[in-house]
Amino acid sequence: MQLAEFGATPAGGVNRPALSEVDRRARRQFVQWCEALGCVVRADAIGNLFARFAGEDDHAPAVMMGSHLDSQPTGGKFDGAYGVMAGLEVLRTLHANGVRPPCPLELVVWTNEEGSRFAPSMMGSLVYTSQLPLETALSTQDIDGISVAAELRNGAGCDAQASVERPAAYFEAHIEQGPVLEAERKTIGAVTGAQGQCWFQLKLHGRAAHAGTTPMAMRADALVAASAIVIALDRIGREHPPGCATSGRLVVNPNSPNVVPESVFMTAELRHPDDAARGRMEASFRQAVNEVSNERGVRIEVDKVLEQPAAPFSPVCIRIVHESAAARGYPNRAIISGAAHDAVAMSRIVPTGMIFVPCAGGVSHNEKESATPEDLAAGCQVLCDSVLSHGRGVN
Amino acid sequence: MQLAEFGATPAGGVNRPALSEVDRRARRQFVQWCEALGCVVRADAIGNLFARFAGEDDHAPAVMMGSHLDSQPTGGKFDGAYGVMAGLEVLRTLHANGVRPPCPLELVVWTNEEGSRFAPSMMGSLVYTSQLPLETALSTQDIDGISVAAELRNGAGCDAQASVERPAAYFEAHIEQGPVLEAERKTIGAVTGAQGQCWFQLKLHGRAAHAGTTPMAMRADALVAASAIVIALDRIGREHPPGCATSGRLVVNPNSPNVVPESVFMTAELRHPDDAARGRMEASFRQAVNEVSNERGVRIEVDKVLEQPAAPFSPVCIRIVHESAAARGYPNRAIISGAAHDAVAMSRIVPTGMIFVPCAGGVSHNEKESATPEDLAAGCQVLCDSVLSHGRGVN
Repeated sequence: MQLAEFGATPAGGVNRPALSEVDRRARRQFVQWCEALGCVVRADAIGNLFARFAGEDDHAPAVMMGSHLDSQPTGGKFDGAYGVMAGLEVLRTLHANGVRPPCPLELVVWTNEEGSRFAPSMMGSLVYTSQLPLETALSTQDIDGISVAAELRNGAGCDAQASVERPAAYFEAHIEQGPVLEAERKTIGAVTGAQGQCWFQLKLHGRAAHAGTTPMAMRADALVAASAIVIALDRIGREHPPGCATSGRLVVNPNSPNVVPESVFMTAELRHPDDAARGRMEASFRQAVNEVSNERGVRIEVDKVLEQPAAPFSPVCIRIVHESAAARGYPNRAIISGAAHDAVAMSRIVPTGMIFVPCAGGVSHNEKESATPEDLAAGCQVLCDSVLSHGRGVN
Repeated sequence: MQLAEFGATPAGGVNRPALSEVDRRARRQFVQWCEALGCVVRADAIGNLFARFAGEDDHAPAVMMGSHLDSQPTGGKFDGAYGVMAGLEVLRTLHANGVRPPCPLELVVWTNEEGSRFAPSMMGSLVYTSQLPLETALSTQDIDGISVAAELRNGAGCDAQASVERPAAYFEAHIEQGPVLEAERKTIGAVTGAQGQCWFQLKLHGRAAHAGTTPMAMRADALVAASAIVIALDRIGREHPPGCATSGRLVVNPNSPNVVPESVFMTAELRHPDDAARGRMEASFRQAVNEVSNERGVRIEVDKVLEQPAAPFSPVCIRIVHESAAARGYPNRAIISGAAHDAVAMSRIVPTGMIFVPCAGGVSHNEKESATPEDLAAGCQVLCDSVLSHGRGVN
């Protein structure tokens, strides 16, 4: 709740764009909290923050946990922030009880997970796992032309610089962001992996004209073409359950009531647990774009800015999460993640597990996002037990 | 060309939003030019500027001419500005030759004709003709919440205040903004009237949700609903030739790639020379909105912000324009105006005529807007002969 004051919105949500001033202030608060526990905090070149909590064998590979602090423009208090705060709660509990974990723990804040200010999402974890070139990430600009590099020159929240070596495992706690756990009255979801997804940016080039004097047949209306693509995406999503297809951003130029729109910028994304099915969705999408372009006389550029195959998580980590929940008596189930997370990026290079807790109505990316203190505490407990289990080498 | 330096864009067009600082500077330039001819310039309560050029019988009702100086965001040099400059050229010619017109001439700059910053369009002439309450116009806000009244407190370009009485007639010169005159190699169009139009603002209220975890069947996507309305508008326009139907502005909230859009603001406009046909277009439009709302589970508010019936111009003024063109040997034809103009507002209360000249490719509301010096000069000549003819009482 204290963290949610950074970027608090009147409607009870959070607006904390990645690397904005309010995000920087939240990061500095995080660093202060960690340093109070004796952690050493460092930032890497993309601004990911790592707080190191010493272990009994401090030369053993660390177990890492964490999530992100940036939010959607009209986001909630829990998406991302919960995973960081759950990790902090684990460290505070160990510190308060004078317990040294068997190996060092690294609590990480990943930079720009949401992707709503700077595309793509999961920028920090993709750079850390060498799936996105650092230079590409640094040169990315927001809608106002401000680059990631420029914002990082204003500070990442921590002055110490280091590159942090690959951990033995990674665990992330997160609200489910879907309705399943709540509907089935389960407290813990042991995440088995994430569905694949790809993101596109489209530029549609029509012809501006006076809306009162240009006969319909002589128009090349970029917004009519974009609308046909939005409708096609919705159809493609419905034709490929349980896949999803969405256009979330659309900007019209010149955006004047009585001018036939000259150009449109829009995004499109496709998700499916099965990569082959997602491939069929992409083929349908590209066919629809071509048909719209020909029919409407509007030139359309399609740029694929992100492709994430479906990501199965580590069987060892999944089992540890299940067993940790069961040992505490929490109702639990296996679950697939519909959303992308930094854990998906991490799962490509280290054994990875995720712990879901229910959120009210399955609502997320929304100021109304909510979760109960009891469920959130259960998630912290399972996170704590899981990182200690893995550190002890129960596998 | 000098006037086009106020708000000049790199692509050779003009961006001169109504009552912006750059519009105010253009207005002050206009006032200086008129005062150099001995005109008395006054502003009325909505910021319309009137430059009075004395006549032989200075107590006779004036003949008025003019147009507007505000532009579209990516507009051209000629839309509006030409009609004001043509009127100035008439006054300069009379002044240079020591000619007094039979009655006073009033050269008018109407405030906010375009409607792209403050809706509705033709604000100044609608207020002057008592078709829009002054208070409504003054309280209108732009997209940043700045009101017309607030901008007028920064000055309208002229300190003298007056309400200017209804003239005997009104003439406006304008580029055609369509392809007919150029295609038929006519120099002058004697405008017989304007097609009717109505403007709508729509607010669509869906439900924000995570684009990766919200099943397609559980969504209320405001952008999908808006897109269906854009497509329906395009269909309705094509089904009612020579009518036009356009959505020129659409704004998505929160406009983030991986959030199902919560709400959309959009505009819609319908135009047709036949009011009954436009009524059928509106019925189809409203039916489509209801169907989309029911099908997509998105609540839709429809607000009609402007309705202008088709406006036939004065037979006397039409004849004067024809005869003035013919007397100078300019090829001419009768033509209907697809666009709205301040002359349409004026035609409701005084005998009104318009003089069209060709524009390159029929392109307007576009930075590429262009017209030849010869055609523009012919329009000035016909405007001059028309206002003198009317003043002499040839009718």
